[in-house]
Amino acid sequence: MSIIDIINKKRNSQELSKEELEFAFNGYIEKKVTDYQMSALLMAICINDMTDKEVFDLVDIFIKSGDTIDLSSIEGVKVDKHSTGGVGDKTTLIIAPIVASLGIKVPKMSGRGLGYTGGTIDKLESIPGFKVDLTKEEFLKELGDIGMVVCSQTSSLVPLDKEIYSLRDVTGTVESIPLIATSIMSKKIASGADKILIDIKVGTGALIKNDRDAKILRDLMIRIGTAYNKEVRCIISDMDMPSGFCVGNALEVAEAAELLNGKIKNDLYDLCVDIASNMVSMGKEISIIEARDQVIEAIETKKAYAKFIEFINYQKGNIEAMNVSNNKMEITSVQEGVITAIDAYKVSEVSCKLGSGKLTKEDVIDHTVGVFLNKQVGDSVSVGDTLCTLYYNKVKEDFDVIKAFSIQ
Amino acid sequence: MSIIDIINKKRNSQELSKEELEFAFNGYIEKKVTDYQMSALLMAICINDMTDKEVFDLVDIFIKSGDTIDLSSIEGVKVDKHSTGGVGDKTTLIIAPIVASLGIKVPKMSGRGLGYTGGTIDKLESIPGFKVDLTKEEFLKELGDIGMVVCSQTSSLVPLDKEIYSLRDVTGTVESIPLIATSIMSKKIASGADKILIDIKVGTGALIKNDRDAKILRDLMIRIGTAYNKEVRCIISDMDMPSGFCVGNALEVAEAAELLNGKIKNDLYDLCVDIASNMVSMGKEISIIEARDQVIEAIETKKAYAKFIEFINYQKGNIEAMNVSNNKMEITSVQEGVITAIDAYKVSEVSCKLGSGKLTKEDVIDHTVGVFLNKQVGDSVSVGDTLCTLYYNKVKEDFDVIKAFSIQ
Repeated sequence: MSIIDIINKKRNSQELSKEELEFAFNGYIEKKVTDYQMSALLMAICINDMTDKEVFDLVDIFIKSGDTIDLSSIEGVKVDKHSTGGVGDKTTLIIAPIVASLGIKVPKMSGRGLGYTGGTIDKLESIPGFKVDLTKEEFLKELGDIGMVVCSQTSSLVPLDKEIYSLRDVTGTVESIPLIATSIMSKKIASGADKILIDIKVGTGALIKNDRDAKILRDLMIRIGTAYNKEVRCIISDMDMPSGFCVGNALEVAEAAELLNGKIKNDLYDLCVDIASNMVSMGKEISIIEARDQVIEAIETKKAYAKFIEFINYQKGNIEAMNVSNNKMEITSVQEGVITAIDAYKVSEVSCKLGSGKLTKEDVIDHTVGVFLNKQVGDSVSVGDTLCTLYYNKVKEDFDVIKAFSIQ
Repeated sequence: MSIIDIINKKRNSQELSKEELEFAFNGYIEKKVTDYQMSALLMAICINDMTDKEVFDLVDIFIKSGDTIDLSSIEGVKVDKHSTGGVGDKTTLIIAPIVASLGIKVPKMSGRGLGYTGGTIDKLESIPGFKVDLTKEEFLKELGDIGMVVCSQTSSLVPLDKEIYSLRDVTGTVESIPLIATSIMSKKIASGADKILIDIKVGTGALIKNDRDAKILRDLMIRIGTAYNKEVRCIISDMDMPSGFCVGNALEVAEAAELLNGKIKNDLYDLCVDIASNMVSMGKEISIIEARDQVIEAIETKKAYAKFIEFINYQKGNIEAMNVSNNKMEITSVQEGVITAIDAYKVSEVSCKLGSGKLTKEDVIDHTVGVFLNKQVGDSVSVGDTLCTLYYNKVKEDFDVIKAFSIQ
């Protein structure tokens, strides 16, 4: 078997056997297959697609590249959740407490920010003292004790995914449905939950550009789940607009707390109720309508908020000590009209440049900076109205954030 | 402009602009684009093809990556020749003297062996004293003085081709018609001849697997030639069988000399007459039939052989001193029947392993070893008949060369 023959086969649209996929992907981890050979193979996969058999085999190879988590010692149904990435996406911080407060176990491993997209772990680190790195034992104990846990994904879980993702990121091979499905599902299956809810973000700035591709990805992930005896549900949500009012780490944690406290009812609230209802419906095997009533009740009775505080305290976080920068810059409208769009990527880029994300490996995240959207899509604005507020520290610059707003 | 956007564009089958091709390929030479990014782009090109405009732009970028040779100071029509590679291909050694003896200038730069395929330069180095590395001045002087020259291709000519070819070789991106055409035509155009004859080898072991692809490649190379005001003709020839009786450096030079001396009339003779006739027809603007008569006359009157000797002497070679190993091993048939096929690659592999080619960069070529085919396709054989003779030196092993012969 030779890697060149394997690449040629995929280039010619022939199905690769499990042995060939193992040779290529395990060989890559073992440094027997080079970056330039793997990138050629990934491009051939991007263009020529993969059969279901190939995807199932690849998911298996990904899972077996590292450790898996066995949650069978924890009683009850475990429901995990994943979002395909988005700007200002703090849904995990909101949904996990809601679902856990209703008696369903939520074992959630999250990542850090990638490029302009923030990561849940970076957000949690805004909370002084919060511990994101847990041992397997701590993870299981917390899940048993309070019914939820959100921690940093251990590097021993699907290490192949990390390697392949880094290469895809710099070789124009990110947008491949079978590779996206393999990346998501291998991590979710290795994490051990019984049921999985996936929030597929669709939009021009997202990995998935249109509804057609979102549905193909959804159906493929459901089939992968079935092969592993995992119930998978997907919801498809729009990500052309930032979720909620805030982008930036502490700002987003604060927004999540406000929402759980019943103080915010916006598009982010609707999305979180939708995702949580699906997770509760799966976990309790009840209808969505019934689940939705329970979810809203959990928010209104503050049961979900109490779980949020319990979870933060359990992981040694002191939310009272969390800070947002005192330095604010208001960006005002220079025209009158209605906001027809807010470019989520532009807002995120500005937030990152203010210091909320890493642009190089050496950057240190400033958790106190970010962007607060004073106006949302559909709002009318007059000249001089505040469109958004920048929270800055070391970097005082507006980075033309006004260009994110389309006003007509 | 970013390399990732360029890769994505080609992945999505969009046409790349000249600026984008320059960014990618010049960036690769300048080490701003990595091997793994270039291999992803090459794979996208392999699968999604290139438009004529892209190919013309890429040929231009390839040519401009290095020096070009200006032959305008040499009087008369200059006709160059290229073969897309083959086992036992000593056609250059035969054709160049024939065509030059008929008054047409033949400026030929050749390469060394690649993998199991021998190179003309390695063959010429079998001749003691023969000088393969010439300066530009020496090249021009010889062409003016005796009407032909065969020397090593200078590394300053299309350096991009060398870089890209090495990467294609290890990433399953060799079999791409636009990339093959770009590689061949950029070198031929940079070499400065007015007219170009290309011998496209077709066969299971060749770069080009079937007649359909050969015709697509032919038509594309003719269009590239037209864009540069160069007349291009192609002949398509079978390479499933070794050309002639010999594989191995000194053996092949000796075979070429024999053929020019009128002592051999086989498939190799027919192929050489065909190629030479096309070159003469182009060079003198006469019909193929007329050209063919002149070519045969040049061989029969020994005019071509005299030119061969003149050329070898001019480049300081002493053909009388050339040696073939005295150690011979005859391989005899163990069955009776008719030879239906001889596997050219197998024969070449055996010759290489005996020492005629380099299997690693560190190997030193033994010019005196190789394989002589005592029988050809179509010949009847009895048990005990000699099928081939191995000329060996340090390595005395038959490497199962008998498996190259199909006898029925």
